[in-house]
Amino acid sequence: MQTEDLLKQIAFIKEIDKLKYIQRKTKLFNSDRNENDAEHSWHLALMSLVLVQYSNAPVDILKVLKMVLIHDIVEIDAGDTFLYDTKKNHVNTEEEKKAAERIFGLLPQAQAEEFIAIWEEFEMAETAEAKFARSMDRLEPILQNASNRGGTWREFNVGFDVVYEKTQVIENGSTSIWDFTEALLNKSVEEGILRK
Amino acid sequence: MQTEDLLKQIAFIKEIDKLKYIQRKTKLFNSDRNENDAEHSWHLALMSLVLVQYSNAPVDILKVLKMVLIHDIVEIDAGDTFLYDTKKNHVNTEEEKKAAERIFGLLPQAQAEEFIAIWEEFEMAETAEAKFARSMDRLEPILQNASNRGGTWREFNVGFDVVYEKTQVIENGSTSIWDFTEALLNKSVEEGILRK
Ligand SMILES: [Ca+2]
Repeated sequence: MQTEDLLKQIAFIKEIDKLKYIQRKTKLFNSDRNENDAEHSWHLALMSLVLVQYSNAPVDILKVLKMVLIHDIVEIDAGDTFLYDTKKNHVNTEEEKKAAERIFGLLPQAQAEEFIAIWEEFEMAETAEAKFARSMDRLEPILQNASNRGGTWREFNVGFDVVYEKTQVIENGSTSIWDFTEALLNKSVEEGILRK
Repeated sequence: MQTEDLLKQIAFIKEIDKLKYIQRKTKLFNSDRNENDAEHSWHLALMSLVLVQYSNAPVDILKVLKMVLIHDIVEIDAGDTFLYDTKKNHVNTEEEKKAAERIFGLLPQAQAEEFIAIWEEFEMAETAEAKFARSMDRLEPILQNASNRGGTWREFNVGFDVVYEKTQVIENGSTSIWDFTEALLNKSVEEGILRK
């Protein structure tokens, strides 16, 4: 029934407002203000639109947008996972699966299933869309850290080798963007904002 | 040249970070914290994805997403325009046109032209995509105000007739969503959070 569906969708729309309170470790560009997950997701959507020409493989940009727009919604329940956190493994934890079921489960069933499938596809990192979306997710904090005299690299004392290893997956989405990123990491070492 | 284009695109990506500092008058759901334009744009993108079935006319959802993701970027230079501001006319001011040219103009030319055209299409409110995108832009603050005991309606002493007149354009995008909205406005009057 249409009205019943609409009420479920409105409930979902209200619930996801909470993403605006989930703070990331990374700061905004040239800033000491933490970014939140809603701002981050918006930025990844714009980056995907603007940079899609560099994807290694042709992608369905609509699916990429859906991925980056929803990829962090599970953090409303599960909290932000920091890329350089050595204790917590980010890959599809049980906590995140439960969160996906609860939050996307507010939607009418067909829509809930579609959103959960898209989130899982992003997490699996196997399709061209997921690889490109994930390269955007890795690129944004590198740009931010480089603009912030090292940002979280310095704050959490993360060295070049770890950064390189954690961000090299960008290459799976786009070799051109990885080339750019690699040069930026090397430049950051030269500038003394990333230790080698 | 690819590298030259990529540097322009990175410059654009850095510039639009400023949208996260543009404060709206409206507060987050059940909150007294102001929403910023990046969060707002992200929320409209999710609302568009979730509610597209109610559009009066079939729409290209990818174009709708582009519209809502970029519609407020001009406010980086021109500032937020409050819907119930009686002094400033929101429709495509010279200031906003200049802002669109400067900010989207950071991109390679073909992309700049595409983004400016999409922003203008949103502003003109004539195509099915623009009508639906604009209905999302009107709906979000109504949901927020209803969750905030009247929110900006009470704060700026805006009555039912003005709210009704300013939001009825939702009907151009979706009669079902307008029916829902109209009921919510009437309920808000009954609850004493919107004066008649
Ligand atoms: Ca606006």
